[in-house]
Amino acid sequence: MDSKTIGILGGGQLGRMLLESANRLNVKTIILEQGNNSPAKQISNSTEHIDGSFNNPKDIEKLASKCDVLTVEIEHVDVNTLFSLTEKFPNLKIYPSPNTIKLIQDKYLQKKHLIDNNIDVIESLAVESSDSQTLSRIGESIGYPYMLKSRTLAYDGRGNFVVKSKDDIDNALQFLSDRPLYAEKWCPFVKELAVMVVRSSNGDIFSYPTVETVHEDNICHLVYAPARIPDSIQLKAKLLAENAIQTFTGAGIFGVEMFYLSSGDLYINEIAPRPHNSGHYTIDACVTSQFEAHLRSILDLPMPKYFTSLETSMTNAIMLNVIGDKGVKDKELETCKRALETPNASVYLYGKESKPKRKVGHIVMVSSSMEDCERKLNYILGNSSKLSISDEQFLKGRKPLVGIIMGSDSDLPVMSAACKVLQDFDVPFEVTIVSAHRTPHRMSKYAIEAGKRGIKTIIAGAGGAAHLPGMVAAMTPLPVIGVPVKGSTLDGVDSLHSIVQMPRGVPVATVAINNSTNAALLAIRMLGSFDTIYYEKMQSFLLKQEAEVLEKADRLETIGYQDYLSQMK
Amino acid sequence: MDSKTIGILGGGQLGRMLLESANRLNVKTIILEQGNNSPAKQISNSTEHIDGSFNNPKDIEKLASKCDVLTVEIEHVDVNTLFSLTEKFPNLKIYPSPNTIKLIQDKYLQKKHLIDNNIDVIESLAVESSDSQTLSRIGESIGYPYMLKSRTLAYDGRGNFVVKSKDDIDNALQFLSDRPLYAEKWCPFVKELAVMVVRSSNGDIFSYPTVETVHEDNICHLVYAPARIPDSIQLKAKLLAENAIQTFTGAGIFGVEMFYLSSGDLYINEIAPRPHNSGHYTIDACVTSQFEAHLRSILDLPMPKYFTSLETSMTNAIMLNVIGDKGVKDKELETCKRALETPNASVYLYGKESKPKRKVGHIVMVSSSMEDCERKLNYILGNSSKLSISDEQFLKGRKPLVGIIMGSDSDLPVMSAACKVLQDFDVPFEVTIVSAHRTPHRMSKYAIEAGKRGIKTIIAGAGGAAHLPGMVAAMTPLPVIGVPVKGSTLDGVDSLHSIVQMPRGVPVATVAINNSTNAALLAIRMLGSFDTIYYEKMQSFLLKQEAEVLEKADRLETIGYQDYLSQMK
Repeated sequence: MDSKTIGILGGGQLGRMLLESANRLNVKTIILEQGNNSPAKQISNSTEHIDGSFNNPKDIEKLASKCDVLTVEIEHVDVNTLFSLTEKFPNLKIYPSPNTIKLIQDKYLQKKHLIDNNIDVIESLAVESSDSQTLSRIGESIGYPYMLKSRTLAYDGRGNFVVKSKDDIDNALQFLSDRPLYAEKWCPFVKELAVMVVRSSNGDIFSYPTVETVHEDNICHLVYAPARIPDSIQLKAKLLAENAIQTFTGAGIFGVEMFYLSSGDLYINEIAPRPHNSGHYTIDACVTSQFEAHLRSILDLPMPKYFTSLETSMTNAIMLNVIGDKGVKDKELETCKRALETPNASVYLYGKESKPKRKVGHIVMVSSSMEDCERKLNYILGNSSKLSISDEQFLKGRKPLVGIIMGSDSDLPVMSAACKVLQDFDVPFEVTIVSAHRTPHRMSKYAIEAGKRGIKTIIAGAGGAAHLPGMVAAMTPLPVIGVPVKGSTLDGVDSLHSIVQMPRGVPVATVAINNSTNAALLAIRMLGSFDTIYYEKMQSFLLKQEAEVLEKADRLETIGYQDYLSQMK
Repeated sequence: MDSKTIGILGGGQLGRMLLESANRLNVKTIILEQGNNSPAKQISNSTEHIDGSFNNPKDIEKLASKCDVLTVEIEHVDVNTLFSLTEKFPNLKIYPSPNTIKLIQDKYLQKKHLIDNNIDVIESLAVESSDSQTLSRIGESIGYPYMLKSRTLAYDGRGNFVVKSKDDIDNALQFLSDRPLYAEKWCPFVKELAVMVVRSSNGDIFSYPTVETVHEDNICHLVYAPARIPDSIQLKAKLLAENAIQTFTGAGIFGVEMFYLSSGDLYINEIAPRPHNSGHYTIDACVTSQFEAHLRSILDLPMPKYFTSLETSMTNAIMLNVIGDKGVKDKELETCKRALETPNASVYLYGKESKPKRKVGHIVMVSSSMEDCERKLNYILGNSSKLSISDEQFLKGRKPLVGIIMGSDSDLPVMSAACKVLQDFDVPFEVTIVSAHRTPHRMSKYAIEAGKRGIKTIIAGAGGAAHLPGMVAAMTPLPVIGVPVKGSTLDGVDSLHSIVQMPRGVPVATVAINNSTNAALLAIRMLGSFDTIYYEKMQSFLLKQEAEVLEKADRLETIGYQDYLSQMK
């Protein structure tokens, strides 16, 4: 796809996944990493990989001499050498730019940079000297508890210490004294969020959906995509992340981690100038993964004309990191086996030896609903011996999409026509009796649960006072179709008006008196708006209706109205 | 994921994609292929790959000695050696089984095997001796034109000759005389279909959706997934393919190619006992690709508890093979660049040198509609300078999901409430005037095109005779919501009855007189059945309505009914 050669500083799992994308695009890559069998090197037979360190100037120079573009899968590289390369290799591109790497390596400088650019971050103080007096003065200033953090070389929670009170200061110093430190005000967040942002070489910014990260023992355990937060916060987080990345130079992908507070406020926690664990789900849930997006941006390859297609509001995903078991080696593979058994789950292993608490792979499950993802997750984690409800229902038969309810069995002769139509169109449905006046609690339960069970629309038939359709509509966000059933008096106009004249705020889709056929056809049209199978079936049905009338017209024209009429009797 | 080592005979692009799946599952693989830089070897740094031929007994034995499972990416291997291995390496598993490979290598035996098992194939005759007399006798027996085909080593149309008349026989003999032949009755197919079928080691059968293949110069050019054929044929093709694979032994994936005739009949053309070009789309459009499915089956790893989840009725895909340009080397990369610009398209290159007519990669585009895939394809092929309509509309702004129409501008005061609700819920919509009686043709056009433009539901308001909602419903498969608008006489009951009392066959979802608010809320409920964003918004809306009433109730209880009443005035 491109004749440029990319050099990657680091050859762990991020490098491996970058390389997979590069392989697909037939882009030449050279890895700088110790040994000859790191995760990234395993999936490339190039003889040019370098056995060396991304902190050794000579090794970095050797890599640079072979490449057109340098990038990193880890930010803890010898950045001074990167700066020096720009003179020696004037045509070499380095993404992320050395300036960006330098800023990000020192978490306190990173924060200061963001503050200088009016980006919301948690209040932080530099720790000028690592002694108990300074730390106690900081505690008085920003209050206890506060976070004491290493400015450099900190990841997966290493290098962080919670100073709960003045009494903790000595322990904190012992734990962190040999490192440059800064202090951060305590942030009582309700969720941790992350946004992957891609910056193209001309400065265009694109972002993936906001996700939610869940940590265990300071290691990322789960990622929910999209985050289970209100839409407005989703968008706010994306904008915050995009604004933050706008302040950096150079092309490439960035992982922006942030805190979401109960007040609704968002603060950036930290930024990674590379693919990020919170974006692994993009391999399965997006057409263009974070890894391919990074490659495209640093190679100046075309980005899709718009990028938002990455977000399909119909797709939900959960990523579960596969972490080396603390007790038995490779025991985590049992989790992977369960994932293989699970519909719509994928396993990705990094080719790393299993060690306690080591990230050796990840699993992604995708579904049209987050609840379904969560049920899959429970099965995969071994917390539940059952697969998700929808999977089970699928095994038993198909999941009903339409629910038909009626106030009384006396409505069945009318409502059965709807069942017949759904059967003819091969739409899975359920049918039962729910009376507004005689079983009010059953009605509430039915209305409240229908959406969660996967029902897409409810058809409710009722006669007389006919409260069922409107009451059900009042208790579900699903569309409700009302069928006025004609009683022994008033010709059904009582039911019609009772069903159709709903107050503003709670609609019922009303069809003609006794015409449950049309209720079913309307339900199928609703399904067809989103599912082409039903759309096409409805199209054919309309054509068939047309053909039938044309046939009759032809006969009427052929045999004349008198014969036609006599044959009708 | 598994400690077994897989040996693969052949290291081309199919081997490369198999290896990618094996890498993800951390399964060790060894390739037998000439040279050290074949497409598959490129993406593995194993030093154990064998530089040799899958037709050399010694090389095959060497591979077998290092592996637990042998498989193939090409069926033209030395099958006699495979048979002999079962004695020397009693624990070695070979999938597909040597019996299956042997049957499939000889296309005439393959056909005979299928006929013996009552599987529909085109009538074929063995050519006992390759002379003009025999071929002319065959022409008399099965008629001209007929296909003369090589029984062995034929692929991509090589080894096929169309015998149009007796006069062609000499040319045919010259073209094919050195090969064992068979003759096949001419098959006037309308489409070529293919189904990928996976057989697990215990004989369970799973199949992917039926796809449609389009050939150019005898090379697969395009694959449409699913095939653009009626559902019933879709299913029939799957069953035919599954039944065919049931007749073979051993685990693994099979590509089943078939002909679809205008009569509706299906005949199997040929079977490949390995991953197949027609299944490449599964990498992008399915959670488990054909390559991973093959690995799981030959390693006896868990298959998903059901497999049908692979078929998502919402996903459509087109695969375009990237073929080496006949004129300028690497010119086909321009096609790939356009694919990178296209939303929801992916490029996969095989690391092969570009040569005329050589398959060097493939492109997959996915979308919720096949028409959208086709527009993307046109852009990628360079036939159109525009991206798909929906992509363009996206660039301009969001695509309307709801269409609001009314018979006259005098209905706007009533209908504007619907616009307001849709705005409040942030639903993209369009609004215009369409009169059933004054602009009947405009009405037809609107109704017919709405679905294709991505409109999910139409809200139509009308007063008096109020024909608009019903007429539009008669010409679209989309759900239509009718708002009876109250005129100066009859209190709107005229419009209500005209809209709600539609005949059986054409439903209109009718709401209360003048209540266009409810029409919009109903439209949002329809969207919410499939899009959780709107579902959740409707949920909150209902809660908000509830809270408002509770607040009023609280006030009424607090200040008493008299004060409350007086404050209302």
